[in-house]
Amino acid sequence: MPGFPPLIDQHCHGVLRSGPSHAAFETYLTEADVPPPTAPPPHAGGPPPPRGVPPYDGALLTGGPPPYPGAPPTSAYPGVPAASAHSPAPGTTGPSVSYFDTQLGFALRRWCAPVLDLAPHCPPEEYLERRTELGTAEVTRRMLRASGISTFLVDTGLPGPLLTPGELAEAADGEAHEVVRLERLAERAADVARDTHTFLAELSDGVRESVRTARGFKSVVAYRIGLDFDPGPPGTSEIYSAAERWLDSRVPGGRLSDPVLLRHLLWSAVRTGLPLQLHTGFGDPDLRLDRCDPLLLTDFIRATAPYGTPLVLLHCYPYHRGAGYLAAVFPHVYADFGLSLSHTGARARDVLGELLELAPFGKLLFSTDAYGLPELYVVGARLFREAMTELTQGWTRREEWSHKDAERVTAMLANGTAARLYGL
Amino acid sequence: MPGFPPLIDQHCHGVLRSGPSHAAFETYLTEADVPPPTAPPPHAGGPPPPRGVPPYDGALLTGGPPPYPGAPPTSAYPGVPAASAHSPAPGTTGPSVSYFDTQLGFALRRWCAPVLDLAPHCPPEEYLERRTELGTAEVTRRMLRASGISTFLVDTGLPGPLLTPGELAEAADGEAHEVVRLERLAERAADVARDTHTFLAELSDGVRESVRTARGFKSVVAYRIGLDFDPGPPGTSEIYSAAERWLDSRVPGGRLSDPVLLRHLLWSAVRTGLPLQLHTGFGDPDLRLDRCDPLLLTDFIRATAPYGTPLVLLHCYPYHRGAGYLAAVFPHVYADFGLSLSHTGARARDVLGELLELAPFGKLLFSTDAYGLPELYVVGARLFREAMTELTQGWTRREEWSHKDAERVTAMLANGTAARLYGL
Amino acid sequence: MPGFPPLIDQHCHGVLRSGPSHAAFETYLTEADVPPPTAPPPHAGGPPPPRGVPPYDGALLTGGPPPYPGAPPTSAYPGVPAASAHSPAPGTTGPSVSYFDTQLGFALRRWCAPVLDLAPHCPPEEYLERRTELGTAEVTRRMLRASGISTFLVDTGLPGPLLTPGELAEAADGEAHEVVRLERLAERAADVARDTHTFLAELSDGVRESVRTARGFKSVVAYRIGLDFDPGPPGTSEIYSAAERWLDSRVPGGRLSDPVLLRHLLWSAVRTGLPLQLHTGFGDPDLRLDRCDPLLLTDFIRATAPYGTPLVLLHCYPYHRGAGYLAAVFPHVYADFGLSLSHTGARARDVLGELLELAPFGKLLFSTDAYGLPELYVVGARLFREAMTELTQGWTRREEWSHKDAERVTAMLANGTAARLYGL
Repeated sequence: MPGFPPLIDQHCHGVLRSGPSHAAFETYLTEADVPPPTAPPPHAGGPPPPRGVPPYDGALLTGGPPPYPGAPPTSAYPGVPAASAHSPAPGTTGPSVSYFDTQLGFALRRWCAPVLDLAPHCPPEEYLERRTELGTAEVTRRMLRASGISTFLVDTGLPGPLLTPGELAEAADGEAHEVVRLERLAERAADVARDTHTFLAELSDGVRESVRTARGFKSVVAYRIGLDFDPGPPGTSEIYSAAERWLDSRVPGGRLSDPVLLRHLLWSAVRTGLPLQLHTGFGDPDLRLDRCDPLLLTDFIRATAPYGTPLVLLHCYPYHRGAGYLAAVFPHVYADFGLSLSHTGARARDVLGELLELAPFGKLLFSTDAYGLPELYVVGARLFREAMTELTQGWTRREEWSHKDAERVTAMLANGTAARLYGL
Repeated sequence: MPGFPPLIDQHCHGVLRSGPSHAAFETYLTEADVPPPTAPPPHAGGPPPPRGVPPYDGALLTGGPPPYPGAPPTSAYPGVPAASAHSPAPGTTGPSVSYFDTQLGFALRRWCAPVLDLAPHCPPEEYLERRTELGTAEVTRRMLRASGISTFLVDTGLPGPLLTPGELAEAADGEAHEVVRLERLAERAADVARDTHTFLAELSDGVRESVRTARGFKSVVAYRIGLDFDPGPPGTSEIYSAAERWLDSRVPGGRLSDPVLLRHLLWSAVRTGLPLQLHTGFGDPDLRLDRCDPLLLTDFIRATAPYGTPLVLLHCYPYHRGAGYLAAVFPHVYADFGLSLSHTGARARDVLGELLELAPFGKLLFSTDAYGLPELYVVGARLFREAMTELTQGWTRREEWSHKDAERVTAMLANGTAARLYGL
Repeated sequence: MPGFPPLIDQHCHGVLRSGPSHAAFETYLTEADVPPPTAPPPHAGGPPPPRGVPPYDGALLTGGPPPYPGAPPTSAYPGVPAASAHSPAPGTTGPSVSYFDTQLGFALRRWCAPVLDLAPHCPPEEYLERRTELGTAEVTRRMLRASGISTFLVDTGLPGPLLTPGELAEAADGEAHEVVRLERLAERAADVARDTHTFLAELSDGVRESVRTARGFKSVVAYRIGLDFDPGPPGTSEIYSAAERWLDSRVPGGRLSDPVLLRHLLWSAVRTGLPLQLHTGFGDPDLRLDRCDPLLLTDFIRATAPYGTPLVLLHCYPYHRGAGYLAAVFPHVYADFGLSLSHTGARARDVLGELLELAPFGKLLFSTDAYGLPELYVVGARLFREAMTELTQGWTRREEWSHKDAERVTAMLANGTAARLYGL
């Protein structure tokens, strides 16, 4: 990809200090929070029904001997041979579904194997062995330098033994800046606050301090309550009451999911003028995807418009066309396509093409949303470069775009808009 | 398509024993439940306004002579020449809109004409004549054997003079298994039940018996109440009351649309461990498409996760990307793409491509959703084979996928995952 | 594009009588209603917070010196150097985001520059200079005649110094007919009505008169209250009360957004049998896109079905697949793709392809939705011709469609269905 402009990764996370183990590696290739269906089926002596869901008592309805006794469900069909009772769900026993068998898994084997001196698409086992052989530090260094990313904006709000932005920059021979996760800020403040008063003061200080130290804010309100929240800023007494309530009921380390406090955080960030990144679209199963449609933010977007604070919609998939619309009609709205390219692999150009429909080209930003594995920087960067190159080549070949425009727009997405937006 | 693996059709219906007539043939090419707009416009002496909608009385508002008298609406514009009063809706009179003029209609003429020794894309009339000449049995035999499908999972819950699974298997020289439609089970039980008690007992017996005789369950709860139903299992007394209410008010042959009983059916099925197929996405106008977004099932999916029972989302279009997400993050969720390919014809590879974005490859299943016409097996199978071949050829040509992976994933979709899931 | 059939533009608006200025030209390339982010950030002495949103009072929460004083927000961070306080939102100061840098802007420079004797993709400045040099009348004449459009259906409900349908027809050497915007009809009636009684009489007369003078109705109910309105017709006394309430509270020139009156308009139009165009999908930021999903019209569509009055869903993007479904299952539903192609430019064939999935081919209509700039006729027409040609060439090359069918369907979309529907 000669001549492709250097990349600013406007949204990523740290990489692991060591490991992961072969078994854990695969879990970084998915947004699922549990292993793929390889375990024996739960009704073969597996876990009980979910908490809060009583064993289903259809039995009582027959008047005869209970056809559906309580757990374990295997015994539900006394007359049915065990083999047959099992066969219904062989999907949970047979050859496993592997998270390597995804577009992300295939893209990783394609683009990252050569960075470790292996053939593209080599088997996962071979890849993982070579990874162990080289060691985490060397793999990280190789991947980061092969990614073509010069600047990293790191959301430091994820837990785990991750490289700091400074360490990341060093490994990459690049530059790194912090993006502060609002909810984490509040949760940290709650961890140390003596009372409501000091909690809220701590929060204010944290937001203010972030303006000095960070390049933007990030919110995962989508995960906590969805995006259809009350769009206006909460009032002072509301905030006090909510803070009191939350602190009283919070278990140590507990997550913030109080709507009033979440809105207080958002509005505090909006008031600073720093770009505010908002998770939208798909993520792990902790969220309800249909409540993460960025269009649900419309009233919040309208309410914040007079402040001019840039709102950067992250990920967006599968609602990226709606995100493109928002970027088109609201001057302060931008859209990112990080996770959406990494996870769609060979389909990345189709997804990027859809984002390049309504959105003004100066409103779109590259990112990787990489987390844990340094491979994810390489995958995100390569997929974007390939997708953008192929899309624009098609358009210039058909004379729909000029070559000069193609170059100019590519530079905007790669780094231009991010540089402008984050003052880099 | 040499070397393409044999297909397991994981969701289909029977084919007609005889016919259909030329006129009726077309109705099998659409999800509409009425003919295309060929009839004279209703206000030229057509049907009265819909039941429950009173003739519109804007007339009363003018104080002058009624501009909008009651039905028939043709007379609404006394001062307007009849020709002009008609011309507004010539779409309902002029050359008809034909359901042959759809992607499905074009695909059928392309792929099925040669099976009847005709040229691809021959005119519909020619096709229908040849069909009559050969006779239903011969057409059925030819189509089924040309389809490349070796195994059929037949939802036996649709009415009509259809071949049984056994007859289908014989005509196809293949294998057929039953999938039990839950709502039909309840409706049949209601047809014969003496009282609430025997109804519920019959229902329990039916579910239990199905585990012995069938490979899975199917639910059309999407049609009856949409997918945003209360996710948990109903309690015993709730079920009793609902059953009593329904049986009391039911006209013979009446459909089940009671939410409590529908949920009771779903949870009864989940408890068995047999794969449960759920209609999602588009279908006939009986449903509200926006209430059939599979994402509306998220809480039900969460509630059922501990059981491990596979949930297979059918059709999904145009919400197939959301279905792919669910398949990606919930181990027990699978997605099917039957109807979505058949009805999009020349666009099938684009639709399949979108499903191949987030969904792990081991979570996707081929089907035809064929119903009535044996042609629909050929169309569904050919479109899948063409689409999958073309997609993967594009990806291997660009080196995004390896050839070996392409073959492996094709086999998963064609039959591997279905074999595993249904114990075939 | 030799041999491409002449076009009927089934939905457009007038073009400007003069101008626009260079600065204003760009605003016609976007659905945004404000300039792109070029102004200094509002918190550098810009506008106050939005009306109704009090200055955010997080300050009160700290107990210390207010970290977030009232407006102007620049002073919010006394300890932070001004440069840094600014740098957060450099996006609102630096090189501007231009609405020329959009798919529509690129398509305009490609297709319209040659009409003005310039090279495709010439710089915007050069284009605008040449435009001024030639003068509005000449540019208009050239564009309209280059567009390949023979007949224009003009929604006359937009304000501004626009050419009348007659003038448009003359400049284009074509034919033009009126489409009456229902809400404008009501607003005009309200402007002159003495009382509720005369208002409603005027409204009835207006609808009746339109049947004589116009080819269809148009509604922007999507903008006013969204598409999830009560589907049935309102009763007489309801209408009277609503009219009284609205007239009493209305400021001169005020828009109609009363749900009862909006529904009264829709049902009055449905009763006439004239095709009724409904805005759906994207538009300017006045609407909430998620409330403009055409599927929200499902119950209204069902309720109006017995009348047979054609309902034409306009634009539809990004919900065009749902629109295709509605066109497939409801005989009186049609879909238009005007705005959706113009604004997606090089991606138009992908968007059109998606609409050509479920919708019967006899249910789709070409339009440009051109407004203000005569260039938008050229862009809309060329993008459709290119997209349709390329799509069908791809399908015939793969033998998925026959050449004859491709020609036939192209003619349907270009003019056949519109001619039939509007009696042209």
